Amino acid sequence: MRSKEDYLKSLNDGRKIMYRGKYVTDILQHPVLRIAALHASKIYDFPNRLYDDPKYGKISKYFKIPRNSQDLIDRHKLIYDSTIFCNGIFNISQAIGSDALFALMITAKKVDKKYGTDYYNRVMKFYEYIIKNDLTLATAQTDVKGDRSKRPSKQDDPDMYVRVVDVRNDGIIVRGAKAHTTQSAVSDEIIVIPTRAMGEEDKEYSIAFAIPANTPGLKMIVRPIDEVEGNTSSILNSKDYELETLTIFDNVFVPWDRVFLFKEYEFSGTVARLFATYHRFTAISYRAAMANLYLGSAILAAEANGILNEKHVRDDIIDIVMYKEILRMSAISSSIYPENDEEIAIPNFVFTNIGKLYTNTHFHEIVKDLIDIAGGIIATLPSEEDLRSEESEVITKYLRGAIDGKERINILKLVKEIAGSSSMVGYLLTTMIHAEGSIEASKIELFRTYDFNESKEIVKKILSS
Amino acid sequence: MRSKEDYLKSLNDGRKIMYRGKYVTDILQHPVLRIAALHASKIYDFPNRLYDDPKYGKISKYFKIPRNSQDLIDRHKLIYDSTIFCNGIFNISQAIGSDALFALMITAKKVDKKYGTDYYNRVMKFYEYIIKNDLTLATAQTDVKGDRSKRPSKQDDPDMYVRVVDVRNDGIIVRGAKAHTTQSAVSDEIIVIPTRAMGEEDKEYSIAFAIPANTPGLKMIVRPIDEVEGNTSSILNSKDYELETLTIFDNVFVPWDRVFLFKEYEFSGTVARLFATYHRFTAISYRAAMANLYLGSAILAAEANGILNEKHVRDDIIDIVMYKEILRMSAISSSIYPENDEEIAIPNFVFTNIGKLYTNTHFHEIVKDLIDIAGGIIATLPSEEDLRSEESEVITKYLRGAIDGKERINILKLVKEIAGSSSMVGYLLTTMIHAEGSIEASKIELFRTYDFNESKEIVKKILSS
Amino acid sequence: MRSKEDYLKSLNDGRKIMYRGKYVTDILQHPVLRIAALHASKIYDFPNRLYDDPKYGKISKYFKIPRNSQDLIDRHKLIYDSTIFCNGIFNISQAIGSDALFALMITAKKVDKKYGTDYYNRVMKFYEYIIKNDLTLATAQTDVKGDRSKRPSKQDDPDMYVRVVDVRNDGIIVRGAKAHTTQSAVSDEIIVIPTRAMGEEDKEYSIAFAIPANTPGLKMIVRPIDEVEGNTSSILNSKDYELETLTIFDNVFVPWDRVFLFKEYEFSGTVARLFATYHRFTAISYRAAMANLYLGSAILAAEANGILNEKHVRDDIIDIVMYKEILRMSAISSSIYPENDEEIAIPNFVFTNIGKLYTNTHFHEIVKDLIDIAGGIIATLPSEEDLRSEESEVITKYLRGAIDGKERINILKLVKEIAGSSSMVGYLLTTMIHAEGSIEASKIELFRTYDFNESKEIVKKILSS
Amino acid sequence: MRSKEDYLKSLNDGRKIMYRGKYVTDILQHPVLRIAALHASKIYDFPNRLYDDPKYGKISKYFKIPRNSQDLIDRHKLIYDSTIFCNGIFNISQAIGSDALFALMITAKKVDKKYGTDYYNRVMKFYEYIIKNDLTLATAQTDVKGDRSKRPSKQDDPDMYVRVVDVRNDGIIVRGAKAHTTQSAVSDEIIVIPTRAMGEEDKEYSIAFAIPANTPGLKMIVRPIDEVEGNTSSILNSKDYELETLTIFDNVFVPWDRVFLFKEYEFSGTVARLFATYHRFTAISYRAAMANLYLGSAILAAEANGILNEKHVRDDIIDIVMYKEILRMSAISSSIYPENDEEIAIPNFVFTNIGKLYTNTHFHEIVKDLIDIAGGIIATLPSEEDLRSEESEVITKYLRGAIDGKERINILKLVKEIAGSSSMVGYLLTTMIHAEGSIEASKIELFRTYDFNESKEIVKKILSS
Repeated sequence: MRSKEDYLKSLNDGRKIMYRGKYVTDILQHPVLRIAALHASKIYDFPNRLYDDPKYGKISKYFKIPRNSQDLIDRHKLIYDSTIFCNGIFNISQAIGSDALFALMITAKKVDKKYGTDYYNRVMKFYEYIIKNDLTLATAQTDVKGDRSKRPSKQDDPDMYVRVVDVRNDGIIVRGAKAHTTQSAVSDEIIVIPTRAMGEEDKEYSIAFAIPANTPGLKMIVRPIDEVEGNTSSILNSKDYELETLTIFDNVFVPWDRVFLFKEYEFSGTVARLFATYHRFTAISYRAAMANLYLGSAILAAEANGILNEKHVRDDIIDIVMYKEILRMSAISSSIYPENDEEIAIPNFVFTNIGKLYTNTHFHEIVKDLIDIAGGIIATLPSEEDLRSEESEVITKYLRGAIDGKERINILKLVKEIAGSSSMVGYLLTTMIHAEGSIEASKIELFRTYDFNESKEIVKKILSS
Repeated sequence: MRSKEDYLKSLNDGRKIMYRGKYVTDILQHPVLRIAALHASKIYDFPNRLYDDPKYGKISKYFKIPRNSQDLIDRHKLIYDSTIFCNGIFNISQAIGSDALFALMITAKKVDKKYGTDYYNRVMKFYEYIIKNDLTLATAQTDVKGDRSKRPSKQDDPDMYVRVVDVRNDGIIVRGAKAHTTQSAVSDEIIVIPTRAMGEEDKEYSIAFAIPANTPGLKMIVRPIDEVEGNTSSILNSKDYELETLTIFDNVFVPWDRVFLFKEYEFSGTVARLFATYHRFTAISYRAAMANLYLGSAILAAEANGILNEKHVRDDIIDIVMYKEILRMSAISSSIYPENDEEIAIPNFVFTNIGKLYTNTHFHEIVKDLIDIAGGIIATLPSEEDLRSEESEVITKYLRGAIDGKERINILKLVKEIAGSSSMVGYLLTTMIHAEGSIEASKIELFRTYDFNESKEIVKKILSS
Repeated sequence: MRSKEDYLKSLNDGRKIMYRGKYVTDILQHPVLRIAALHASKIYDFPNRLYDDPKYGKISKYFKIPRNSQDLIDRHKLIYDSTIFCNGIFNISQAIGSDALFALMITAKKVDKKYGTDYYNRVMKFYEYIIKNDLTLATAQTDVKGDRSKRPSKQDDPDMYVRVVDVRNDGIIVRGAKAHTTQSAVSDEIIVIPTRAMGEEDKEYSIAFAIPANTPGLKMIVRPIDEVEGNTSSILNSKDYELETLTIFDNVFVPWDRVFLFKEYEFSGTVARLFATYHRFTAISYRAAMANLYLGSAILAAEANGILNEKHVRDDIIDIVMYKEILRMSAISSSIYPENDEEIAIPNFVFTNIGKLYTNTHFHEIVKDLIDIAGGIIATLPSEEDLRSEESEVITKYLRGAIDGKERINILKLVKEIAGSSSMVGYLLTTMIHAEGSIEASKIELFRTYDFNESKEIVKKILSS
Repeated sequence: MRSKEDYLKSLNDGRKIMYRGKYVTDILQHPVLRIAALHASKIYDFPNRLYDDPKYGKISKYFKIPRNSQDLIDRHKLIYDSTIFCNGIFNISQAIGSDALFALMITAKKVDKKYGTDYYNRVMKFYEYIIKNDLTLATAQTDVKGDRSKRPSKQDDPDMYVRVVDVRNDGIIVRGAKAHTTQSAVSDEIIVIPTRAMGEEDKEYSIAFAIPANTPGLKMIVRPIDEVEGNTSSILNSKDYELETLTIFDNVFVPWDRVFLFKEYEFSGTVARLFATYHRFTAISYRAAMANLYLGSAILAAEANGILNEKHVRDDIIDIVMYKEILRMSAISSSIYPENDEEIAIPNFVFTNIGKLYTNTHFHEIVKDLIDIAGGIIATLPSEEDLRSEESEVITKYLRGAIDGKERINILKLVKEIAGSSSMVGYLLTTMIHAEGSIEASKIELFRTYDFNESKEIVKKILSS
């Protein structure tokens, strides 16, 4: 199978990646971007990462098509465990792509049934290419959207959602931009799917496809990684982080066998929601794993400060436990009661969205909990340079707690990174609310699809008896 | 009176300030520290900053000793307005020092009455020196504390709280360190007071005094200002920020006339709590002003995104309004019903602490509100360098909302700074919880001092009737 | 002035009051309704209830027209203190009527100015009649509303909002019904005002007027007072409670001099909102007083159970303190920064609504706090009859806590009434959310009227500098 | 098997049940208590209530000893479905008894192993007697406790926890009282277990046993059922409710074969916690079912008021959905990852307590949600008698919403009962916080047993790498 080194070498393929205003020619030589690549590459070192598929042979577990509860439970664990393996930082490299592929498989079958198209075969061909070569994928879904109060075709600038601008014999030309595409700059392929349900007037926007990262016309503008560049005491982000790009499709050509939806607008919503469901299931899994950073740090910081027996500290800790375990409960229940469509198991819609909504609306609480325990020092901790300066000894003397200063500083540095004066905090607060769909999006979906009948029936029975 | 320039010039006085491992010789030449100094200096440009004192003549309004409700209302407005003047960033330069001075005046009189000491005259002499020279002051209260479960004298290292280590004819020698002293590095004088009530066994720790910033043995280790160094798109912190230091007293000499408490341990709590009350009153005032950053940004970002009429957006905005106005209500009510002690008006203890507790426990909510409105883009916004690159035009095109891309990017940059991927966010989250006393500290004080009699009496009356 | 006895005697005036399906002829003989009347009558026993008006002589303080901050502060205290006087239960008898009168005075002047009408004189004539005779008043505002998604004139049944159905030489005929009119059945007069802003098509619904409680055609259906009838261990409601009625206007005649608004639809909103503001100010005042029931009971129950030193108990208590004091802060601040219109002081709109919103959304929290402290026993406390039975002694033995059983049972009975197994709890939970306007109503008003300029300006200044 | 009629007949067995101060001789003739008995009897009508046990033959599903995940999932559904069958009101009749029996089976084996006692055989003999006769059981756990700050043996009155007062050849004599024993008055047998872990000094209090409800010396004082007696418009409680008693053991004799723990104090905590775990699992199951009352009513009331499309109404509904589904997730996950002890499956401790804590701390929120939707009318709804009076027609006319008045009143009556002016509301608020263990109890257990190692290890790994 593909090795870490194979993967890293392959990145140097001419893709257009801009960082801080300059196009980067060699990612692995770049002091910041290389961390994202090395993080991604860990997927190839993850123990027992392969399984033996009866049809395809040894392939990455990420691409195992879920057929039942056990497959989903296994997928939850895979994401949870690989997040732990990567120091609590999600590794999206084969997760988000497989989420999108499962959604496309189901949708393609439906479109084919209705229109006699050949999408399912195209999707499966692409899928086989991916698993055979053990590739990494990004998925670009969220359009830049322009005026949020208007539909795609009603925007002042028609390019606010990715759209077909030309149709050729051998494929299509697309234009537009997708916002915050995670790890696109270090992935082999980019899958593109619609961001929402579309009406007939938005037909040109109802497209799905996949392209290699070095496709001409594709430009990826990487966000500034302030949390790595601005924080010399970083313990975590100097080892693991994921990047996002503004992903620009500047008249990009897509050959027909890579087009998975083309103007069948009534299926835009289908693929958008199926992907969202798989990806929210992935999200609750990695977020549960990530919660361990907060929980472990809370315990160690409380011990360092000598306050683990304080009631308010224990309340904070219980709160983080609730957060982590409600996410796990959500993933487990989603697996045990899956939806099934086109012979593929989909995580239970309600339980997945409940977990999603809980993490959206409570992550900032666990940050608060950890801050409460750690103390103001995570805002004002001396710098790494101070700690190595002539005053190192006296600083360390004064930063002792119930434990020795050096050890306490170490845990405080991590807490500073995930809850204090580091740009990672604001980054996480934002992504925990918006990544994989906003609070409002989850609520709307939940209301739209929840089956209120059981509840209405019991009340009607009572009223009529 | 003193001018901005006078103040700035005076900083070059040999004080020992370390930044990122190096002692800084000229603050104004330092790319980062100069911002904190320039921010502080704005106090001298604040319109109508002086008033005519019947006894002392024209002095800074900050030092007007409050005698009644109107004086407190005026002080609240002074702090609110000067925070607005400094772009929503608190200017502590004469605020925290006057908070401490009022607390010392009241306490000194009480100690003098009990022990026949001469503290009040010392405090007033120092006060007159300050107002006459229109100086800036830092106040160092929070000790580094070591093991939080042990009292000062029970610590493994006796220096975990600042203490007297030697007594001389002409003064005392003190040792220890105070954590996160705001703007100490750019203040003229440092006032030092105890962090908590003390028992007899902690007598050596029951001291208060004031020293110039360039006193030998005083070392100030400035926290790394990641929010300035790590964020090239910074709009706010590149203009205004305050620094904190780990403030080390390495056998510092304090002459007797600058010693304001010396082993009268039963008054440690008095001065600690009086200062806390004045300073929390200051805090709710500047925090109410700072809330405007969130409220204004929320409105502008909602307009930029075209979502101002969305119900959930309005809920977020109402939430920020509640936050701002509950703080204002708290300041107003604290002023209208002051406590009075030794002829000085003290902000109402209960109302002040209620406001304090509200901001401690709700600031993270308004950050969440703003994130919810702004969208994920504040985590993944292209860098300043990207915006000036060859791709500038296409990036701007794709970042338009209901308004033009350039304008939208501008507001998003500010939102990123105060709620998104900037180290300011974690810094603020931490300080809004811990600065001016932790959540737990406010609760304990509130419970300890609240008069439950009215409530108990009405219930007893009902029970017995 | 009028005495308690005068008031009580006057109730027997032929008014049509239905209770549990029967028209009640003599309120004072009715075991349940008499409590509401006796409660109302306490207003005449409230110490120092009169003041000397320069124009009108000795009149009830409730009717003092507020001209400045001090008048509003006094009004807040009047409502707070009289609520305490009535065992923590609001006494609306002259409060709500004066709230409506002040709103009508201001509105009438405005209508007169625009249309040359004579409403102000009518209002003042009515006002003088009330103060001279020291009468009690109910105010009927909330219409029954029918389908909440439709405006008055669009309802299937045109009578869902009170409206003019005929105009005569000497007055008008009105029809419709108002929901939950507090203490109407035991008031002298009923003031009727519109429930909301109206458009031109709702002209017939844009009316305000006042009528005596015994006006022909007026029918008042009193809600069942389950909290008195169903709870033999009641301590509080057996002494004090207020009733509400479904108030039906079955072709009621109103003479012209009692008509205060007649189809000037654009002023419907004016009077509705002015009344709402005065009445919300009243609400935060009585609710702050009522909070003492919860606070006092919490302390006494905690002592009775021996858990006052438990941290979670103290958290609960702090929470109730916050609730009470934020309401007080809101009333104080509303008074200190009044709006002024037509020479009358109106409580500050923003602060009043903030207080209102806080009580709407937090009352259920203080109920939870008290339940948490009291224990499950308030759901399962033996009945009054058990406590007087042959097993009285053994029951009392087993219900002891840190104090004697008899005493503990006494406090638990009150807690049961205000937080446990009593219909008062659900009644309060509902009224604390809906009385004086729903949560949503407060939010909409707040958003509509808040001045966002200060916030927007500081952000714009930062963005442009 | 036993029929409903068999069960009802058997209640007339001389048991000592006091209601409102009088001993009741025939429960089925009692207008209030009969409802509790009829409710209990529904267990015998529940469809498919039996299963075929390989060892014991056809027995009630409640008594199926759980051996694996599927058994626990089935048990969750049994409790959920039978709660739905009883109109959303829990039916404890065989649920709580089986919860206690499973706990006793596990504990007995452990004690026998350590001390060579014969408890397991006694428990199994009792179990076989129960299943063979298909009996109902109450479980009395919570002692009256006296001063909560003192241990059992330190109380002023030694009877504050049930204890052995005499030991005889044929058995023991016990004295004390248990608080709020659910359905004891209408159960065949009462199981008694310790309320907490005990130390050696509390040995006399470390006992478990079972006795028939008509055992001499056993007195049951039923709480007043105000929600049935005080609410003539009751729809729900007039059909289904459960009672609680103060259960007094006045020198009650227990034969040795019914004694399951006798002074082996170190196992007090074992049985207390095992029972708590089973019973909390039961609780989250019935509470999830009960949530349908709130959810269904919310939808129907919103439709009745014409506000189902309002955003704030949908937020309320989503909130109730979250509540219900987090409980279900908790039950499902507890089943999928059981603990196993002595060959019996125990619901996962962490997931069960998380669910429990969530319902403790959020039930009052869903009450608030429903009140918000229903409107103030649930506090002031005319009485049943009014609705049948001469004014019936006009009242109904004015209470229409988006639907006809009659139908709307019907749903409002139910909402009044479960969220408005009914004593059921306070009863539920209290029991949802305290039944099956208080908030604090759940937190302490969770903290005590949570395995923090995974979290600590990942943080330690990061810190050391």
